[in-house]
Amino acid sequence: MSRGGPALIDGRARARALQRRVACDVVRLAELGVRCGLATVLVGTDYAAGAYARRLERAAAAVGIEHRHHHLPAHASRGEVLELLARLGDDPLVSGILVLRPLPAHLDEGELFTALDPAKDIEAVHPENAGLLALGTPRFVPSTPASVFHLLDSWLDEAGTDRDAWYRGSTVCVVGRSNNVGKPLISLASARGATVVSCDENTSRTGRLARYTSLGDVLVVAAGVPGLIRAEHVAPGAVVLDVGINPVPEPATGRTRLVGDVDPGAVAAAWAATPVPGGVGPVTDVWLVQNTVLAAEEAAKRR
Amino acid sequence: MSRGGPALIDGRARARALQRRVACDVVRLAELGVRCGLATVLVGTDYAAGAYARRLERAAAAVGIEHRHHHLPAHASRGEVLELLARLGDDPLVSGILVLRPLPAHLDEGELFTALDPAKDIEAVHPENAGLLALGTPRFVPSTPASVFHLLDSWLDEAGTDRDAWYRGSTVCVVGRSNNVGKPLISLASARGATVVSCDENTSRTGRLARYTSLGDVLVVAAGVPGLIRAEHVAPGAVVLDVGINPVPEPATGRTRLVGDVDPGAVAAAWAATPVPGGVGPVTDVWLVQNTVLAAEEAAKRR
Repeated sequence: MSRGGPALIDGRARARALQRRVACDVVRLAELGVRCGLATVLVGTDYAAGAYARRLERAAAAVGIEHRHHHLPAHASRGEVLELLARLGDDPLVSGILVLRPLPAHLDEGELFTALDPAKDIEAVHPENAGLLALGTPRFVPSTPASVFHLLDSWLDEAGTDRDAWYRGSTVCVVGRSNNVGKPLISLASARGATVVSCDENTSRTGRLARYTSLGDVLVVAAGVPGLIRAEHVAPGAVVLDVGINPVPEPATGRTRLVGDVDPGAVAAAWAATPVPGGVGPVTDVWLVQNTVLAAEEAAKRR
Repeated sequence: MSRGGPALIDGRARARALQRRVACDVVRLAELGVRCGLATVLVGTDYAAGAYARRLERAAAAVGIEHRHHHLPAHASRGEVLELLARLGDDPLVSGILVLRPLPAHLDEGELFTALDPAKDIEAVHPENAGLLALGTPRFVPSTPASVFHLLDSWLDEAGTDRDAWYRGSTVCVVGRSNNVGKPLISLASARGATVVSCDENTSRTGRLARYTSLGDVLVVAAGVPGLIRAEHVAPGAVVLDVGINPVPEPATGRTRLVGDVDPGAVAAAWAATPVPGGVGPVTDVWLVQNTVLAAEEAAKRR
């Protein structure tokens, strides 16, 4: 632990540990004759989405499961995408399906997500899976919010904390309220019995952000605004988890740097914090692969 | 408005106004050949659930729609209940289905709710409908949280407030986190752009309740604990909505009185508050009937 700063929660090390566990699950299932397969679907040419698909290809290979990437052109019709999703739903070699975002504007995200087989919807974007999560009985926990709590839970365990009691006496503040990150974070914090504070851009615009974020024993930031969180936003002794991965141009070098939503100087008085990069991000890829394995196991149970 | 106290938000008057609007919708739909029908299902002999079914019968009659009550014995099997729900799902004269709670212990609430036709699930207990609400695109808003925001929205409108701007600059604190009331309240407050604080019994047990409830420009209490909220829990100028309806025995008379979760003395410095009884409760019955009418209209559109 460095003097004067917070402990760093090493996402890469925890991702490797999780990866080993998932690889063992894959071997165990293979011995039972159960195969796991991840299908990713990209419509169009979004650069970040393409890079994500390549990262997932590596994450799948690392645990020994199959991955097939389906790339449709940006002008693919609604019917073509629906037909592909139906085919993947029927394919016994595909246990998990991820539709990469963003989708081209002519496609209705809600319609496509609702067309996914809920049992293969490893990112829990189908309304039924979003509902099961909201009701406290998730089939799949989406990868980014799951990774945040995986890091937090493991940090508390390593610190020798009685985790259940700690959450019940703590406040989790979530900044950002997207359907895939902010809202599931609220559900996961609620399920642990924490008091929950949820801020969005209006909290910030009306000058109340520091008042609310500084209530958090845990502060999770998923706003997509580089450096939004500064020292005055962070309670001394808090655990700070930064979901932001923002590309920022560096004029001096002409290159692009990835920075979080939390200013590096903001966490000086925190108990612990995740770095960017190397914090939440590395866990998410492994989590998605883990959900693919879980889906295969559940499908085998139903057979 | 009484001197020295908060304005009272009259739920009965607003329920009557809503009832007139729904009755007009029923007439309009009847002219188009669309019929609305509410089916309630009670398994066993829970007294409060039976009383609720009778209230709904009156609410349905008041707007001119059909109501059929299905009463199964407490020992009804899983298969018998599922068969009834399937039959109601197929019945074109039934547009909305409500399964009354509590169910006998041998029945799995989640299984039965998942067996409901989502298009007739007017209390939004099917995971798909819970998910659509959580994602900010509800098919049906469940009656109690909907009634809270109906009262709040109408109060703000009558007070001449710019409602959208007011919510964006305000904090909604919700006490209680049940699947049918507390969690949907968080979704509805989020959808309005408010900063949201969610407390549960742990907040109270760890001595932090007043600290969090007093942040609320709106305080909604759905804890089921008579008199939980006292003066120190309420910010001056807040709007307080009390969902609690707790039967309390009166030793002097031997009778039972209904009291809320908010102590009557707690709201002296509030801007406005709902009474118990006569606040949130009367709106909920009409809201459920309104959802039945909405379901019939949506079903007609799909035909």
